[in-house]
Amino acid sequence: MVKLAFGSCGDSFSASSIKAYVAEFIATLLFVFAGVSSAIAYAHAFALFVGVSMAANISGGHLNPAVTFGLAVGGHITILTGIFYWFAQLLGASVACLLLQFSTHGQAIPTHAIAGISEIEGVVMEIVITFALVYTVYATAADPKKGSLGTVAPMAIGFIVGANILAAGPFSGSSMNPARSFGPAVAAGNFAGN
Amino acid sequence: MVKLAFGSCGDSFSASSIKAYVAEFIATLLFVFAGVSSAIAYAHAFALFVGVSMAANISGGHLNPAVTFGLAVGGHITILTGIFYWFAQLLGASVACLLLQFSTHGQAIPTHAIAGISEIEGVVMEIVITFALVYTVYATAADPKKGSLGTVAPMAIGFIVGANILAAGPFSGSSMNPARSFGPAVAAGNFAGN
Amino acid sequence: MVKLAFGSCGDSFSASSIKAYVAEFIATLLFVFAGVSSAIAYAHAFALFVGVSMAANISGGHLNPAVTFGLAVGGHITILTGIFYWFAQLLGASVACLLLQFSTHGQAIPTHAIAGISEIEGVVMEIVITFALVYTVYATAADPKKGSLGTVAPMAIGFIVGANILAAGPFSGSSMNPARSFGPAVAAGNFAGN
Amino acid sequence: MVKLAFGSCGDSFSASSIKAYVAEFIATLLFVFAGVSSAIAYAHAFALFVGVSMAANISGGHLNPAVTFGLAVGGHITILTGIFYWFAQLLGASVACLLLQFSTHGQAIPTHAIAGISEIEGVVMEIVITFALVYTVYATAADPKKGSLGTVAPMAIGFIVGANILAAGPFSGSSMNPARSFGPAVAAGNFAGN
Repeated sequence: MVKLAFGSCGDSFSASSIKAYVAEFIATLLFVFAGVSSAIAYAHAFALFVGVSMAANISGGHLNPAVTFGLAVGGHITILTGIFYWFAQLLGASVACLLLQFSTHGQAIPTHAIAGISEIEGVVMEIVITFALVYTVYATAADPKKGSLGTVAPMAIGFIVGANILAAGPFSGSSMNPARSFGPAVAAGNFAGN
Repeated sequence: MVKLAFGSCGDSFSASSIKAYVAEFIATLLFVFAGVSSAIAYAHAFALFVGVSMAANISGGHLNPAVTFGLAVGGHITILTGIFYWFAQLLGASVACLLLQFSTHGQAIPTHAIAGISEIEGVVMEIVITFALVYTVYATAADPKKGSLGTVAPMAIGFIVGANILAAGPFSGSSMNPARSFGPAVAAGNFAGN
Repeated sequence: MVKLAFGSCGDSFSASSIKAYVAEFIATLLFVFAGVSSAIAYAHAFALFVGVSMAANISGGHLNPAVTFGLAVGGHITILTGIFYWFAQLLGASVACLLLQFSTHGQAIPTHAIAGISEIEGVVMEIVITFALVYTVYATAADPKKGSLGTVAPMAIGFIVGANILAAGPFSGSSMNPARSFGPAVAAGNFAGN
Repeated sequence: MVKLAFGSCGDSFSASSIKAYVAEFIATLLFVFAGVSSAIAYAHAFALFVGVSMAANISGGHLNPAVTFGLAVGGHITILTGIFYWFAQLLGASVACLLLQFSTHGQAIPTHAIAGISEIEGVVMEIVITFALVYTVYATAADPKKGSLGTVAPMAIGFIVGANILAAGPFSGSSMNPARSFGPAVAAGNFAGN
């Protein structure tokens, strides 16, 4: 099942690849801006649905380093291209949180932490819900036999995240998205002196 | 209308049937994990929508022994295959609740009970809402003339459950899904000594 | 624009017409059961979306005498067929409320009333929101040039009702559906002695 | 990228253009009526989804002078036609608020204001969320390569607004729509003597 391919620079710097990085950057920025600001499961679900829709035709609509990693393991994108996806996603999430912190007058950006459970328990929870997310991406968006399910793929991806935040949020913070965690950390460092 | 067919072992153990059981197991696991954990109608609706989308092309996306039973009565699947679907669904729900109980540090998993109404009244309520669910599956997913409605079938199935939980939840617990009730019971037995 | 046609008995009692009445009866029953029981805008929106999906291919998914009336005025169905639609819708709503009242141990079914506004003001509000509903049905479901919008028509119809209940509910009760008002009245009469 | 075209009177007064203005007027009226009345992010999201669906095939479903401006800059409509779109949108929003104020017995219509942040911070926030909205319109509705994403475009447009209201509402009022702000201002002037 593992079909890793490193890829070539020519491929990773083609015009369509550059467009894909920009699409990932913008869509991740808008998703994290709306999601982090409201900290409500509903806003996360709908903003992610919109973000995936936005970028679906250009970059595949990952918006999440874990999703990019999962698709690289399955051979859907090369490792080199995946690394640039990661960079675009982390940059988008960071810019989103900096813009958010500026425009909300430097208020604290909420960060994730486990609560009332041990670290190993938090890891098991994150494994289950991140598996749910990546499995959903494979079943509805990446599967070549997906048929009309592709139409609702962005919605399914948004809603599994919304449902998992409701389920796991009180315990493990329900990250599922390294970029979503990375952005607030960058903003916290930047505004530490405030 | 009743078109029961027992089926053969060869049919029920074909490669595509095995794939269907695995798809039912995974999708039921993820649905029950998100739904039981949050105990919120919204999370149930969206997690079920996603679970049905996940498994739609492989197993038909039942995720519910009552739905499997309904489709067996209509001749859409054989009785033998249906029994393996049941097994996969009950196993998925049980594993979901065990994972959930482990990762939430052994907190009690909510189980269903009737409240403020008699048992016969609870039975009538469950009959109406379970009929609504199975009828929705037939009208939007199993009907060969469904056309473009098939695109929104997973959503319709998820939302009728969400609406019925809001409607009947305070009275009968609004199960509609034997697997959804079975999982917490297994987990309760397992952690009874806690 | 008005293209009223009375219709013939042969047409109104054809096999497909009878099927349409049964579909309207069942879908209205399930919509009113879930909607009245929870009295929450969210449940109304999602139950109506599901009800319209259920009946879309068989009866057109009206579920509402006002919608049937609007489509008869536009010549989409004949007056005689429309009258049988009305009968099926009112019967479905009544059975829903009787089943609901039985299964909730005879609790009061909420009925609509205007609050804090005059009767003429309530009438204006109902005109605007009922126009919004019927216009939505025309634009997304009845328009022969609707194209891919037909896929989301049941959702658009469900959500305009949900949004209007949030908007107008506190003032005029936001009925928009004579069957939705008729059912609780029948149930109230039946259980008046309780 | 900027492809401004002024347009001709013949084009802007053709039968299909007149239809488009009426469609924008009605859809904006219904969206603002439901959205302003309830002042809830959920109602905004769903009413806008429905409004865009209503008008999608006739006028493109802008419902928002900022969206019309964005599409004029990209050359999708001419400047002259865009001005008539603006007029229809502002008229629809105004009539909606007048109808709402009449039918709610002259209650105050909520207007937007920034809270707890400076004006420049509010401007940055509005830039980010309005960019998110217009980018969503381009990616899902205006893109000629959008494919099956067009089916969910009205939903994506509705939900990005809902998510952004949850995100930015407490700070900048989260207007994103000049017509949405214009309507309450007109109504406030009209009922100032009350």
